[in-house]
Amino acid sequence: MATRIPLYERFAQDLANQIEAGTFPEGGRIPALREAAEAHSLSLSTVLQAYRLLETRGLIEARPQSGYYVKFRPRSEAIEPDLTPSREDPTSVSIDALSMQLFHDTLDPDFAKFGAASPDPELLPTARLNRIVAELARENAFDLDTSFYPEGAEELRVPIAQRAFGIGCPVGPDEVVITAGCTEALALGLQALCVPGDLVAIESPTYFGILLILEALHLKAIEIPTRPETGISVEALEFALENHPIRATVVMTNFANPLGSCMSDADKHALVDLLSRKGVPLIENDIYGELYYGDRRPSVAKSFDTDGNVLLCSSFSKDISPGYRLGWILPGRHLDAVKKLKMATGSGTSVLPQLTIARYLTSGGYDLHLRKIRRAYEQKMARMTRAIEEHFPEGTRIARPQGGYLLWVRLPAGLDSMLLYREAVKSRITIAPGSIFSPTHKYADYVRLSAAAWSERTEKDVARLGRIVRGLL
Amino acid sequence: MATRIPLYERFAQDLANQIEAGTFPEGGRIPALREAAEAHSLSLSTVLQAYRLLETRGLIEARPQSGYYVKFRPRSEAIEPDLTPSREDPTSVSIDALSMQLFHDTLDPDFAKFGAASPDPELLPTARLNRIVAELARENAFDLDTSFYPEGAEELRVPIAQRAFGIGCPVGPDEVVITAGCTEALALGLQALCVPGDLVAIESPTYFGILLILEALHLKAIEIPTRPETGISVEALEFALENHPIRATVVMTNFANPLGSCMSDADKHALVDLLSRKGVPLIENDIYGELYYGDRRPSVAKSFDTDGNVLLCSSFSKDISPGYRLGWILPGRHLDAVKKLKMATGSGTSVLPQLTIARYLTSGGYDLHLRKIRRAYEQKMARMTRAIEEHFPEGTRIARPQGGYLLWVRLPAGLDSMLLYREAVKSRITIAPGSIFSPTHKYADYVRLSAAAWSERTEKDVARLGRIVRGLL
Repeated sequence: MATRIPLYERFAQDLANQIEAGTFPEGGRIPALREAAEAHSLSLSTVLQAYRLLETRGLIEARPQSGYYVKFRPRSEAIEPDLTPSREDPTSVSIDALSMQLFHDTLDPDFAKFGAASPDPELLPTARLNRIVAELARENAFDLDTSFYPEGAEELRVPIAQRAFGIGCPVGPDEVVITAGCTEALALGLQALCVPGDLVAIESPTYFGILLILEALHLKAIEIPTRPETGISVEALEFALENHPIRATVVMTNFANPLGSCMSDADKHALVDLLSRKGVPLIENDIYGELYYGDRRPSVAKSFDTDGNVLLCSSFSKDISPGYRLGWILPGRHLDAVKKLKMATGSGTSVLPQLTIARYLTSGGYDLHLRKIRRAYEQKMARMTRAIEEHFPEGTRIARPQGGYLLWVRLPAGLDSMLLYREAVKSRITIAPGSIFSPTHKYADYVRLSAAAWSERTEKDVARLGRIVRGLL
Repeated sequence: MATRIPLYERFAQDLANQIEAGTFPEGGRIPALREAAEAHSLSLSTVLQAYRLLETRGLIEARPQSGYYVKFRPRSEAIEPDLTPSREDPTSVSIDALSMQLFHDTLDPDFAKFGAASPDPELLPTARLNRIVAELARENAFDLDTSFYPEGAEELRVPIAQRAFGIGCPVGPDEVVITAGCTEALALGLQALCVPGDLVAIESPTYFGILLILEALHLKAIEIPTRPETGISVEALEFALENHPIRATVVMTNFANPLGSCMSDADKHALVDLLSRKGVPLIENDIYGELYYGDRRPSVAKSFDTDGNVLLCSSFSKDISPGYRLGWILPGRHLDAVKKLKMATGSGTSVLPQLTIARYLTSGGYDLHLRKIRRAYEQKMARMTRAIEEHFPEGTRIARPQGGYLLWVRLPAGLDSMLLYREAVKSRITIAPGSIFSPTHKYADYVRLSAAAWSERTEKDVARLGRIVRGLL
């Protein structure tokens, strides 16, 4: 319990804290006396005393006939950006704290964002989406307030089913569940298949979002060796299945994060057959599948699925908009379980972004857009690779993905990428240190760099990063 | 394995199924020959054979220089709506199947929707929202594609923090997490506090969505007696806390679903003190708090919270738009755990609806809108109550809530409301049977009816429902 501070002082402090926190911004009105008194069960005179105290302190001002407002405070002189922000020592924090930090650094406009897996904002059809949003609003198409379904809007499930057919997966619109990005698709899939304590086979290295989901759902992971070119080792997985009670397998079949690996058709077929034989479901993450550089879109494992054992997950976050938070899952024979969970944990997805993307998909131009960004990312990857080769010290090894925009890079001489992370952040560059891609913190001498962040403008940041690496050797 | 059906026939069947399922609607184009051959790993001639078969069957047609299209089929004569739809016997299905069914019935435009807890679409500011959406699109305000935060847009967290201050909860915008409706807020809160197997104290009767969440998270429930006027019994809860290892408590403090109960300030204070003393967090669901009929908004328990033990959940689904799927949680001292989960299971909420509602809240008119709909729901409740009194047989008992729009009704002579549900559905009326509001299926002789669905037009449906009740006695 607090010591005996007078009521009005306590209330004044509450209000001062909220002015500080931004609840009441500069120049904005604060609650009227009577309103505040009622809301906080205080007498009018207590509130008045509190407001006078804050006036004295120069935080608020009364304007006659209008009420109380937060005062504008004089800005102190412009301050140089603090290049050594106090942040927790990343080595002492868990993967989830580090990945959350990475996420926030990545949103800081001052950072060179090689650490993120976000697409290049220049390569998103934002203007077009804005036009569609305006068009739908004019048509009052969002007058669908009460008719949202937990599984998503039919307007969007139809074009998704059509595109699924186009990659060899004959599913009806009723077998599609719309999700909040691929993340929710993966989380729903895992939650539908597993109970807490269950063991899940994952790629090694793996997308760290999977590790966050496993932790949230109280699941355990077993890491299956994965090669930079050909993806998960089906032989190693078979061995693991024979020796461990694995309940589900999560695989990025095409242009995996972080490796960039792409499985062959034969391996995909073998993977699907193996898991079907063993009765272990496959959660397939195909989020980068459309970003291929070659002549042909790589297949999805789900196209070899004959018994509904594959749950295919993807999203529009890499090619249309990450901020729309729209993905989907084709849950195969686990459809009912996934739909039930979707309803229980969120009752569906916002109608507004669904209808917008539905119209974008059906009004033509999406395939053209995809062709354009495939070429753009291929170029960025080539240039980023060249820049790393040029600026990083000898002994650096770089993967050679044939799609996506992520580069898995091995640092020379066993250099700890967590050290590099800390130094790079001081220079306002983000990288993704290798150890967050494994629950056992393997890959300490790897980093994942995003070529989506490469541009003429950021080439110098690659050079700076190279100098930091050299400095640490 | 299938018997030896020729490849082209199997492919033709896949395609026919997808035409039937709506993946390829009438008049729409189907994939070009080459495209289909590649996607499904078939030879061109196999696909051609399949397409010819479907042409013969009258399902598709070739249009020169353009490709293949799904044919328009002649509609058979208009069919009378089937008044005895084949649906599973509700008594044989679980609460979640029944509530899912209820949800879908409710979306059917032909039904009188007394079973749903949806607001009246006429009482939502839809036109205004559409204007804001168009305005934001014109300003390119949605050009925020890569800057979404797992915890939600600051633009929306600020007005939510301001309104929280207005009801006696001084929290900063950084202590607000935006969610996919109140459902996700509740699910995140429970997931942050509990591990599978934990025991959660709930009201009896309770909102059935809570039961779906508990099932999805593998949690157990203990039912605490709750009174129609004054809400949960704090004494009974105290007794339960002393005798059971309860890890969290979920309470609708204001105009609870289904009871309509509203706790007094004294009871809220006592509830918060009790749970703080016992170290058991309170998840408070205040989704109907703004829909009061009296002079003053009822308080929230969180306004009595001194140690961050209360997680306050609410949403805009009842007063602004259910289809936007936007809610929030003020998680108190569990903020970090909730943010982490939000990131792990969905990486945030769509930016588009967030910015739209943010502008709606800050551009004036929200309070006026609330005043208008409070009056409207009060009237609807009065008329719905009158209509039930008039048309239902003697012995019917009706709760008298002072807010919200839900009516908890006890049927006369122990009539089983599941029977009533089945009969009412045949007449295209939905009701919510009482047993779904309890994990032990108490309240079989109660129904929850929504006065939001009451109108001059639906008064006759109340009369019909009354006749059905009489017929079942």
